[in-house]
Amino acid sequence: MTTPEIHPEIAHLAWLLGTWTGEGAGEYPTIESFTYTEHVTFAHVGKPFFSYNQKTKHAETGLPLHAESGYLRAVGLDRVELLNVQPSGIMEIYEGAVDGSSLDLVAVHIAGSATAKDVAEVARQITVDEPGETLSYRLQMAAVGQPLQHHLAATLHRQP
Amino acid sequence: MTTPEIHPEIAHLAWLLGTWTGEGAGEYPTIESFTYTEHVTFAHVGKPFFSYNQKTKHAETGLPLHAESGYLRAVGLDRVELLNVQPSGIMEIYEGAVDGSSLDLVAVHIAGSATAKDVAEVARQITVDEPGETLSYRLQMAAVGQPLQHHLAATLHRQP
Repeated sequence: MTTPEIHPEIAHLAWLLGTWTGEGAGEYPTIESFTYTEHVTFAHVGKPFFSYNQKTKHAETGLPLHAESGYLRAVGLDRVELLNVQPSGIMEIYEGAVDGSSLDLVAVHIAGSATAKDVAEVARQITVDEPGETLSYRLQMAAVGQPLQHHLAATLHRQP
Repeated sequence: MTTPEIHPEIAHLAWLLGTWTGEGAGEYPTIESFTYTEHVTFAHVGKPFFSYNQKTKHAETGLPLHAESGYLRAVGLDRVELLNVQPSGIMEIYEGAVDGSSLDLVAVHIAGSATAKDVAEVARQITVDEPGETLSYRLQMAAVGQPLQHHLAATLHRQP
C-alpha cells in the first residue's frame, strides 16, 4: 500500500488529515453535563474528499458514547461541504467557510430517521492551531425544543 | 480491549457482523458498465446499532471508486433503519424489513449537498446465505433523470 498523493482540489485542507485524540465536555438543558474522551480521524484515498470518523467514550466509565462518520468535500478554496451521519438516526449536510486552518460550518439540511430525536439546527467550528498539533472544536445545537446554544467543546492532539 | 456483547435490541441481526470482501458489477444507462472489488464491515460497540463501512476499487486498475458509511438501527425484530452517507455528497435514510437473514431496504429520504448529483430513488436488498459465509446485495437507483432500475450487484465472502 503506497499512500496516494492528496487530490489537488482538497490539498489546501491537509492540515486536518491525521488521527486526533483528546478530551471534551458537553452540556445541554435537557441532560446532565458530561466529559468524554474522543478519537477523530480525517483520511483520504487520493480523491477530492476526506473521510471523517469520530468516536467518544465516557471519561470515567470508558463506555462508548457518541459516534459519527461522513465525508468532507472542498468547494473551491474557501468553501466546504461536510456530510455527517450519526447512529442516533440523525444525518446532516453542513456548508461552511475555510478561514486559514479553521472551518466554520452550519447545517443546511438535517434529517432524522423515524425513531430519531428532533434536531433543528447545528453549527460547528473546527480549528487546527498554527503548528498543526492541536485541533479544537465547538458545537452549537438547537434540539428537542431548545434554542440554539453551546453543546460541545473539545481539544484534541495529533497522534504520531 | 474486550469485545462487548451485542446489544439485545440488535442481536437478531448478528449474521451481518464481520468483514466481507468480494466482487461486484455496476451498470447504468448514463455510464459504461464496470466491475469492482469491495470491502465491507459491519461492526458494533455494544450499543443498539451496527456501524457500516464500505469501499470499492476498480477491478482492473485497483484505484478507489466508491465509498460509503453509516449506521444500521433495529426497530423491533422485523424492521430496520439504515443511515448512509457517500463522498459524492449524497446521504440516504432507508427503512426496511428483516426477513430471516435478508434486509429489504427502500430509501425514504435522500438529500444531496449543493454540488451533488440528483438521486431520486434507491432500494437495496442484502442477503447472507444460510451458513453465513456469503453476503450478496443488489441495488436499484433512479438518478440523473433515469427511472428506477438495476445498478449494482455484488457477492462478498466473510473474512476470517
